[in-house]
Amino acid sequence: MIDFSLTDRETDLQTRTRAFVRDHIIPMEKDPRQGHHGPSDALRRDLNALARRAGLLSPHCSPEFGGLGLTHRERAIVFEEAGYSILGPIAMHCMSPDEGNMHMLEAVASEEHKLRWLKPLAAADIRSCFAMTEPAPGAGSDPSALSTTATLEGDHFVINGRKWLITGADGAGLMIIMAKAIVDGEDRGATILFSDMPAEGIVHERVLDTIDQSMTGGHGVIRFDGLKVPRENVLGDIGRGFRYAQVRLAPARLTHCMRWLGAARRAHDIAVEYANRRVAFGKKLIDHEGVGFQLADNEIDLHLARLATWHCAWVLDQGRDARVESSMSKVAVSEALYRVADRCVQVLGGMGVTGDTLVERIFREIRAFRIYDGPSEVHRWSLARGLVAKGAH
Amino acid sequence: MIDFSLTDRETDLQTRTRAFVRDHIIPMEKDPRQGHHGPSDALRRDLNALARRAGLLSPHCSPEFGGLGLTHRERAIVFEEAGYSILGPIAMHCMSPDEGNMHMLEAVASEEHKLRWLKPLAAADIRSCFAMTEPAPGAGSDPSALSTTATLEGDHFVINGRKWLITGADGAGLMIIMAKAIVDGEDRGATILFSDMPAEGIVHERVLDTIDQSMTGGHGVIRFDGLKVPRENVLGDIGRGFRYAQVRLAPARLTHCMRWLGAARRAHDIAVEYANRRVAFGKKLIDHEGVGFQLADNEIDLHLARLATWHCAWVLDQGRDARVESSMSKVAVSEALYRVADRCVQVLGGMGVTGDTLVERIFREIRAFRIYDGPSEVHRWSLARGLVAKGAH
Amino acid sequence: MIDFSLTDRETDLQTRTRAFVRDHIIPMEKDPRQGHHGPSDALRRDLNALARRAGLLSPHCSPEFGGLGLTHRERAIVFEEAGYSILGPIAMHCMSPDEGNMHMLEAVASEEHKLRWLKPLAAADIRSCFAMTEPAPGAGSDPSALSTTATLEGDHFVINGRKWLITGADGAGLMIIMAKAIVDGEDRGATILFSDMPAEGIVHERVLDTIDQSMTGGHGVIRFDGLKVPRENVLGDIGRGFRYAQVRLAPARLTHCMRWLGAARRAHDIAVEYANRRVAFGKKLIDHEGVGFQLADNEIDLHLARLATWHCAWVLDQGRDARVESSMSKVAVSEALYRVADRCVQVLGGMGVTGDTLVERIFREIRAFRIYDGPSEVHRWSLARGLVAKGAH
Amino acid sequence: MIDFSLTDRETDLQTRTRAFVRDHIIPMEKDPRQGHHGPSDALRRDLNALARRAGLLSPHCSPEFGGLGLTHRERAIVFEEAGYSILGPIAMHCMSPDEGNMHMLEAVASEEHKLRWLKPLAAADIRSCFAMTEPAPGAGSDPSALSTTATLEGDHFVINGRKWLITGADGAGLMIIMAKAIVDGEDRGATILFSDMPAEGIVHERVLDTIDQSMTGGHGVIRFDGLKVPRENVLGDIGRGFRYAQVRLAPARLTHCMRWLGAARRAHDIAVEYANRRVAFGKKLIDHEGVGFQLADNEIDLHLARLATWHCAWVLDQGRDARVESSMSKVAVSEALYRVADRCVQVLGGMGVTGDTLVERIFREIRAFRIYDGPSEVHRWSLARGLVAKGAH
Repeated sequence: MIDFSLTDRETDLQTRTRAFVRDHIIPMEKDPRQGHHGPSDALRRDLNALARRAGLLSPHCSPEFGGLGLTHRERAIVFEEAGYSILGPIAMHCMSPDEGNMHMLEAVASEEHKLRWLKPLAAADIRSCFAMTEPAPGAGSDPSALSTTATLEGDHFVINGRKWLITGADGAGLMIIMAKAIVDGEDRGATILFSDMPAEGIVHERVLDTIDQSMTGGHGVIRFDGLKVPRENVLGDIGRGFRYAQVRLAPARLTHCMRWLGAARRAHDIAVEYANRRVAFGKKLIDHEGVGFQLADNEIDLHLARLATWHCAWVLDQGRDARVESSMSKVAVSEALYRVADRCVQVLGGMGVTGDTLVERIFREIRAFRIYDGPSEVHRWSLARGLVAKGAH
Repeated sequence: MIDFSLTDRETDLQTRTRAFVRDHIIPMEKDPRQGHHGPSDALRRDLNALARRAGLLSPHCSPEFGGLGLTHRERAIVFEEAGYSILGPIAMHCMSPDEGNMHMLEAVASEEHKLRWLKPLAAADIRSCFAMTEPAPGAGSDPSALSTTATLEGDHFVINGRKWLITGADGAGLMIIMAKAIVDGEDRGATILFSDMPAEGIVHERVLDTIDQSMTGGHGVIRFDGLKVPRENVLGDIGRGFRYAQVRLAPARLTHCMRWLGAARRAHDIAVEYANRRVAFGKKLIDHEGVGFQLADNEIDLHLARLATWHCAWVLDQGRDARVESSMSKVAVSEALYRVADRCVQVLGGMGVTGDTLVERIFREIRAFRIYDGPSEVHRWSLARGLVAKGAH
Repeated sequence: MIDFSLTDRETDLQTRTRAFVRDHIIPMEKDPRQGHHGPSDALRRDLNALARRAGLLSPHCSPEFGGLGLTHRERAIVFEEAGYSILGPIAMHCMSPDEGNMHMLEAVASEEHKLRWLKPLAAADIRSCFAMTEPAPGAGSDPSALSTTATLEGDHFVINGRKWLITGADGAGLMIIMAKAIVDGEDRGATILFSDMPAEGIVHERVLDTIDQSMTGGHGVIRFDGLKVPRENVLGDIGRGFRYAQVRLAPARLTHCMRWLGAARRAHDIAVEYANRRVAFGKKLIDHEGVGFQLADNEIDLHLARLATWHCAWVLDQGRDARVESSMSKVAVSEALYRVADRCVQVLGGMGVTGDTLVERIFREIRAFRIYDGPSEVHRWSLARGLVAKGAH
Repeated sequence: MIDFSLTDRETDLQTRTRAFVRDHIIPMEKDPRQGHHGPSDALRRDLNALARRAGLLSPHCSPEFGGLGLTHRERAIVFEEAGYSILGPIAMHCMSPDEGNMHMLEAVASEEHKLRWLKPLAAADIRSCFAMTEPAPGAGSDPSALSTTATLEGDHFVINGRKWLITGADGAGLMIIMAKAIVDGEDRGATILFSDMPAEGIVHERVLDTIDQSMTGGHGVIRFDGLKVPRENVLGDIGRGFRYAQVRLAPARLTHCMRWLGAARRAHDIAVEYANRRVAFGKKLIDHEGVGFQLADNEIDLHLARLATWHCAWVLDQGRDARVESSMSKVAVSEALYRVADRCVQVLGGMGVTGDTLVERIFREIRAFRIYDGPSEVHRWSLARGLVAKGAH
């Protein structure tokens, strides 16, 4: 039955997370251990400790791995609240790429792999990265152009290639690598392999300067220089890498929507508060329709972004394929939240382009969100493909 | 619990309505008894007969009045299907303004008034109109400028004034009139009164030429020239007219969203079918990203419009005040469906601006929808008012 | 030298046209001889007589053919003023398709053809049509799909095929036909031929119902049923039809921009006047930023549309190929004017969707303009083609 | 006569500036002496030396002060070319706020003041800043809220107050201060005063972190703590500060448009080049309509932005009040260039949000441009004011 009410558990989680963020995380927002490549690992560990104490660390993981076993809808509630502070998802260890990596590991990995990598990851003892995207002419928006190879030599795969925009690579303890497996000289298809980090053979060329700065470790450029990983470090079966990545991608795309929804709500709250205070041309900004209408549109955009996110989370909770819904949500939510952030900048005027409020920062983060996990154009393309030969419905 | 699944009853209603529209109403779409001021009453009666036979007449009314007692969410499901043909809501007698009038009568009117007016209205024996809007400088988007007066003289109210954009006035059997009650020379506030039609004292000056043409009777200009209605024809209490109108307005606004969602989906289906068939520059239109991306955006807009409508229907089903939600839905849905219709025109190219498909017609109807029941600007204004002095949330 | 001042001649033409439209044409706007397929020929002739008397008939033609020999920039000035009334271009006989046809004839046709067809056309003794577009799967936005054939049989071409969206076909005295010439069984390419009208072999199947209604004769569907035209009725050379059509297309596209700029300015003036008069929520509409900002954006859009049009006219006056500039102008101007018209509807509220002002009509006309002479998508496609392999500039 | 051709001088200036930027400035773009608060003064001086050698330093100044005495149209040509590198305007010393300050000084200041301050400023021996904007509740978008005071005490004005977003304050040698003059206890109105820098009484509290980073010295927060300036340091007359600021504002607003037009063209060129090189889903990006259409829209936006800028420059060259035109240009150009930059980011995908190309940087700069010199909303407001009581035109 169509229903938008929260369960008692959801209400409780929402209340707890909101209080945690308000009381423990927002006060940390000016901590100087943040730079252009994200919070330092020292800061990250301090934040994780706070979340651990509050029982909110890695809440998406099953209780077996110390989490709360959140459904996708519960994640929607909790991650939005976490995202209200840009440090919230870092603290609760439900930020990209770790959250998506844990999700995939829990869904696909063997018990042995879980013990070895999911356990410390869920406990925030280590961070992880997901090495799929490659510089041109390799796999960008179009993963089929994958050029990194993992060649089986005896008991080991030897990996060569370059990866780019690898979030969190700097400082990670685990790298999840997408590569073409070459076995007996034959291309066996995209395959996922694990490597501990740091590792000989993983050359961290540099951290990219990006418009966003909220992810620990930033976004790195990596070179595999004959990296050796044991044969048993393959996730699941050889050649099924893209299939496993799909397990990760749709939900990971959606958890981005959840977290940035919280961030956009934060920007909006700042703008509303400002507009109720600042006077120009004889009255409060909020009393200028030119401002008030923008804030009204923010309310609408936030509302619809939340509904789209909840809907897709519900589809995922049904165990159904959510590729279409997650593509629709990614486009709709990222574009809507970006409009929200852009209007907040505009409402704040000169203040809006400075670091004196979080609005400027949130604006930059959400600009990047329109690109990460597939630019809107790629999702539109994919949705359009789905309409080929589709009759009336 | 957040849930987007349909109940069995909803699924059944959806299936039945969809089949009814497909099998009985769409074949009637070329019936020549349609003009620039809507379908004729003869056509309307034929269509009503089809719906009556299918058990789908006035489905929003309670069984007591021959309906199905639909919840707001059920209306969302059923009215979308009805709207898939522009004649669907006419047939099922759930078109504006009758549907909203029945809703208000059922919610507010006395038993006597219900028997006298709701009963024949729900049975589609008569049509009705709602005479609130006035020409400048009277009550338009701002109802407080109401200038029509109803002066108590003995046992009757004598009504004078002018009304404008009165949908369905031509041919209606019942007029619901908003006027300032003057009792003992004192303005007692906005009051709703009933009048049978035709009536001496109701001068139907003309039917407006409007961009839309789906509502029976078109949109009329009315003059009250000393119309006399008995004192007992007052709905509820004197002076509470706006309060009763509110009972009508939020749901009526939302049922517009439901019906036009169906119409926009129809336009989209036509465009998708066309794009899968028409070839230009060496490939099907759908294989041109310039077309496919527009259709992808249509899918997203339709999806979000549906979610916003369902959510607001759910709020109404909780018995809660839905003014904010219905304003958000009105803006979001009307603007989204308009984008859909506009893109469909564009995808069809030359064909899109002709009457050779329904797309051109639907485009015009939805253009008017952006104005009716409050232009987007009025709702934005109202939403912005709600943000005054609102702190973080 | 970059200059935006008008020459004395331009100022004089502007003043005269403006006065002519204001004093003679606007008073005719309520003439009942207008229907959904445009003004009647009787009305058209009365209007032409007024323009003839004012010395403003066919002003784009050379004096030899009774015109004023306007440069493209002068056309920009004069046609904008003509377009201020939707009847203005009809009166001055500078409406599509006649104006473009005269332009092409004057530029390309032989002296004999000019005498036979341009002379009566320029004098408004007859109207003309341009039969290029075909129904699917023929030549629509992509002219290369041309399927109508003109087969040489002895001294005559015998034409077979169907045409669609042929503006002004109903009542025209001249048809300019694009067909594939078949000579000795061989396809000799797209060729333009003339036929007097009416003619045996030209079957006028019907006039399309379209969202616009300003062009005399509406938009027709034509069937060639063995139409015979003498061999000498070929314009220029066989096989050069598209080249000649290009002579027509870029300027014709631009004169649309000029005329609709005038119409959009009219809508804007109506909206500004309305906003200065109508009161809502305690103040004039113009004093609501939600309205005033829309009107400010109108000013900007009208200004830029004019600049783009002037620029392209200047390029044409240099004798340069203006395909890129005319495509840019078509997209920019049609989209800008449409935004203007749409905002005007919105500012007028309920009034805006009725025929009580011209705004609703202008809105519909400009919606069609976004399609006619190439939908925006086709021009974007063509502009994008021009960027292939283009380096920095 | 409407004309878009360049004069020989303009063509020559364009060619020279383009070559200068290409050959001397673009190679400097990776110079490490650039930070989040703009290029260092050392870098600035090196760049100035290059421009001086090329004869392109302070080209807007009259030859008397070492410039080229450019007309506004010539500035449009030259500044666009300068802006093609973000370092170009710094090098040529025609960046904000110096360029606007020089313009005002040349137009308004006494010979003595010119010798004292314009001369070293034009020679790039010093930089300057313009201290008008104040933190809330002082003068922001609404200058009438001015709260800084300059109280005449004997031969000196004593200035107290705070200023905010003062571009270039850090390291400037001249501050131009807007303050309310208090003479004999009476408010004599907004007045402009000069102060050498550094000066006791000017406390530079901090440099703001802003989304942009191209202006030398960044944007500072200043406190006047009893700053004393001699009485003769008043520009022109007491109480005419806003009038003099107007002399500066309209042209300064427009030169922003010129420079950022060049920057947006640069971003577009990078995106076009990338789209012609990068392959995804089996073909070059440029061959995807989803990319090509965005680049086509860029071409249109750049074209119209240039036309609007040229037109306003022409109005200024006529010596006419250009407040309306400069407001229209500011809104149209800043919004158009922002769309261009945003599309370039999108076309580049992941690359677009990194510092690996200039696109990300240009995007941030132009985001700020939508705010600086009046947010779009303030200009719309001002344009709407101009429509009050405006009849048809």
